[in-house]
Amino acid sequence: MVSRGDGARQRMLEAALAVLDESGLAGFTMEAVARRAGASKATLYRRWPSTGALLVDAMDATYRPFPTPDTGSVSKDVTEILTAFVALLERTPFPRLLAAFIDAAERDPALSGIHQDLTKRRREPMLAVLERGRDRGELPPDTDPELTTDLLTSPFFYRHFVAHRPIPRRMVSDVVARVLFPKT
Amino acid sequence: MVSRGDGARQRMLEAALAVLDESGLAGFTMEAVARRAGASKATLYRRWPSTGALLVDAMDATYRPFPTPDTGSVSKDVTEILTAFVALLERTPFPRLLAAFIDAAERDPALSGIHQDLTKRRREPMLAVLERGRDRGELPPDTDPELTTDLLTSPFFYRHFVAHRPIPRRMVSDVVARVLFPKT
Repeated sequence: MVSRGDGARQRMLEAALAVLDESGLAGFTMEAVARRAGASKATLYRRWPSTGALLVDAMDATYRPFPTPDTGSVSKDVTEILTAFVALLERTPFPRLLAAFIDAAERDPALSGIHQDLTKRRREPMLAVLERGRDRGELPPDTDPELTTDLLTSPFFYRHFVAHRPIPRRMVSDVVARVLFPKT
Repeated sequence: MVSRGDGARQRMLEAALAVLDESGLAGFTMEAVARRAGASKATLYRRWPSTGALLVDAMDATYRPFPTPDTGSVSKDVTEILTAFVALLERTPFPRLLAAFIDAAERDPALSGIHQDLTKRRREPMLAVLERGRDRGELPPDTDPELTTDLLTSPFFYRHFVAHRPIPRRMVSDVVARVLFPKT
């Protein structure tokens, strides 16, 4: 059941995302979000002590973390996470928000720190899946989950934000095969 | 020998980069660059028909392409390219400019197209090195140079722009070993 408080919170987070999407981080102020949400600045400050705190919750809301898959196969679990991530890149406002964040974080160390924390949280499902695969003996015992997570996810960021090329249908299975089960 | 014309061109490109770095793409106009360079707008337009064309040359100037290595060893060649790229990320204005571009390209398809071309050009040395390694039999004959280039370079973009974590000294050799010479 969604309580009245949850509905109000949700409305404020949606207003925050709309402001961020339209005006970028430069226009992201408590005042602009309050106006958009039809709420008072005092109401916003009661929930979030700073624009940074509000920003973190709003970014978290776009990312919509889903339950960590646990199919018993590392290959299936990783494929599921990467497929959901590609859908996020291709069909939601997430990449526009992330792009604004990338630019702003380059100029502002505080934002860079916030984004570092968000990214750390978003990596957790992949790290968990890789650790389980290693413990089950599907991956070599010296597998480094951190480096493997970098190798599995970064090609999709790169393809979208740097190369500006569409993500081919086969790319998830190609990356999984190449990174997790390489031929020598 | 640098002719008088080359010196003037260099000064205008430097002015373009300074404007881009300070004001972002929103403030990147022929007028602002002309003012900064102490030149007339007409002089700028004689060399570059549009801000887009000027932007491409300015971004190319920051990237400073170096000669494609050809040591006879694919591992050494790739290491050389990645080491130079890490230096570019850590010690030049290139990442700030790229971050501004990433944000702007997300909102403007024309800029996205320009950046697609620039990225394509920047990938050429790596593609050449991988193709030579494959032809020499150092890499498997079914190596896909495009996917391999994605896997080799994108972890460094990701680490800098998304994870906001320092690039560890060992990361180049770890990525090269893992992507080019995996154990199964």
